[in-house]
Amino acid sequence: MTASEHPRMSDVARRAGVSLSTVSRALRGVPGVAPEVRHRVEQAAMELSYVISRGASSLVTGRTGRIAVIAPFLQPWFFGVAMAGIYSRLRSTGTDMVVYEVGDTTALSSYLRTLPLRRNVDAVIALSLRPADEELEHLRRLGVPVVFCSDEVDGFPSVFIDEAAAAADATRHLLNLGHTRVAYVQARDDTGFSWHSRQRVVGCRKATADAGLELVVVTAKTGIDGGALAAAELLSLSDPPTAIVTETDDLALGVLRTLERSRLAVPGVMSVVGFDDQETAALFDLTTVAQPVYDLGAQAAQLALDVLDGTGRTDTHLQLPTHLVVRGTTAGPRPTSSLAGPSAGESS
Amino acid sequence: MTASEHPRMSDVARRAGVSLSTVSRALRGVPGVAPEVRHRVEQAAMELSYVISRGASSLVTGRTGRIAVIAPFLQPWFFGVAMAGIYSRLRSTGTDMVVYEVGDTTALSSYLRTLPLRRNVDAVIALSLRPADEELEHLRRLGVPVVFCSDEVDGFPSVFIDEAAAAADATRHLLNLGHTRVAYVQARDDTGFSWHSRQRVVGCRKATADAGLELVVVTAKTGIDGGALAAAELLSLSDPPTAIVTETDDLALGVLRTLERSRLAVPGVMSVVGFDDQETAALFDLTTVAQPVYDLGAQAAQLALDVLDGTGRTDTHLQLPTHLVVRGTTAGPRPTSSLAGPSAGESS
Repeated sequence: MTASEHPRMSDVARRAGVSLSTVSRALRGVPGVAPEVRHRVEQAAMELSYVISRGASSLVTGRTGRIAVIAPFLQPWFFGVAMAGIYSRLRSTGTDMVVYEVGDTTALSSYLRTLPLRRNVDAVIALSLRPADEELEHLRRLGVPVVFCSDEVDGFPSVFIDEAAAAADATRHLLNLGHTRVAYVQARDDTGFSWHSRQRVVGCRKATADAGLELVVVTAKTGIDGGALAAAELLSLSDPPTAIVTETDDLALGVLRTLERSRLAVPGVMSVVGFDDQETAALFDLTTVAQPVYDLGAQAAQLALDVLDGTGRTDTHLQLPTHLVVRGTTAGPRPTSSLAGPSAGESS
Repeated sequence: MTASEHPRMSDVARRAGVSLSTVSRALRGVPGVAPEVRHRVEQAAMELSYVISRGASSLVTGRTGRIAVIAPFLQPWFFGVAMAGIYSRLRSTGTDMVVYEVGDTTALSSYLRTLPLRRNVDAVIALSLRPADEELEHLRRLGVPVVFCSDEVDGFPSVFIDEAAAAADATRHLLNLGHTRVAYVQARDDTGFSWHSRQRVVGCRKATADAGLELVVVTAKTGIDGGALAAAELLSLSDPPTAIVTETDDLALGVLRTLERSRLAVPGVMSVVGFDDQETAALFDLTTVAQPVYDLGAQAAQLALDVLDGTGRTDTHLQLPTHLVVRGTTAGPRPTSSLAGPSAGESS
């Protein structure tokens, strides 16, 4: 493919018999171009050995046509769904998505420190990742376009949910059913990140405090096994709870496993509430808080595109709604709530 | 950051007091550089307003430093895990990962047709995606470096599992337990893609045929609900199976749901085997075929890097091992296998 002459976009447009903008949209893969037209443009471009040059357009716009998504992990449910949401919006403008996994605070700060030097993306979407304050200050000073997805950060466009209010809702659902001994299972990991979801315990504690009750809090390693251990810990208390709220659905699934193995009826002996509404939550008939993960991603991508367009503002903070999905794992407590059953009751 | 003079990598190396290659590795984020050294290099680069220029290195190597991963979906378990595997290997060389979702055959062929025109990546990893034969021929002719992950394609580096042999193993496990009426639930979707996993039914059919038995095959929409419907269909047969093999764990979870709602004991009345070994498989105590999804991704990334290095060959075909994980959803059939229970038995 050595070419002494470089065919231009206008050559492709002429050969395909379409407008320049149609060529541009067709070759960038932007939806909305009729398949037949897209095919004709592709054919013409191939025949002319036309090269779709981001480099050339960068010289005009100073843009790379790429947006980076940085995430602590790529594997868990949350990140796949959010990524799909981000992609859906970027794709509609022909923007490429470059993905980075930064699994701990060291990797994150290394990424952010070198970001201004790399200039290989136009903006960054931080997915469920909050840098340290001094790093945020540094990014603010340099004016690097960073959008926060699933977190709320001063001075940067952010899209998030009200974690505390959502958890408080879930807790009030249990209190309204008549529960007076409620426990919360908080996630813990070794990443060093301060997750936005940490605020869920705040909402849970506020709801119980408003009802004049105390919240029992245990921490657990993230994931199903962590939840299973946390449930065992709660069951070993001298005065176990009758309802458990967990920071994530995964933790709730682990709690359910321990309860099943202990042959404790759910919701008869213990009510359980998760957070996320993953596909498996429905399968386990788990009452849980549904958060709009796909939309969080899509809206974050839109905020990033708006910033690049010059129409976005750094103080755009979007809060998306959550809702409690009541399923079969929650009900009122037994008249006597002792785990030993009615015969051992200290009250009738 | 206007600069009349452009600082070079050697300026950064001098200021940081390290070698050129250390600067290069530190700024590309390649692991193996001591944190203290990495920080010193980043600091020197910042102070000099050095720009890490992929563009400049491209002029020398003709490379972009990016590899594309194309996948039919971003959301399901399989793709998140494979992506994490791919990323792990790319990251170790400082190569960027650009992700494209091509959800049906039209999107795939549009992507592939324009690929040679875009020149924005050095290679492509096709994740569980097989183009049409004429498109493969076209890519072969152009010499576009494409690596197939979770599929085996002539003339391209590929990494995959032996789908048929793995499914045959799972089926023989059931036959050895004494089952004589085995069913298979095959996945069906609207993408138009011919998934490599389609070969699982071939192995299942071969194993039953070798035992002189016939395999009952039903198709189901991919996912939990599809599996639930397929199980209902199998239960409505005049002579229902006593064991079910499914194309994916998700289908198996749906099968289990229907069996539970029908109050049919697993494995007492029905044995169930999945395929994948997702985290939820263990939670449901599901016997399943474990496939090494993370490794499929990592090995595919390595094949792509090898091709770019000039050390890889197009005829490298790597088959990774699978293994059957026997859990609690499989056991021998009841002496009388009628779903109506022992009292209705036509034999004792």
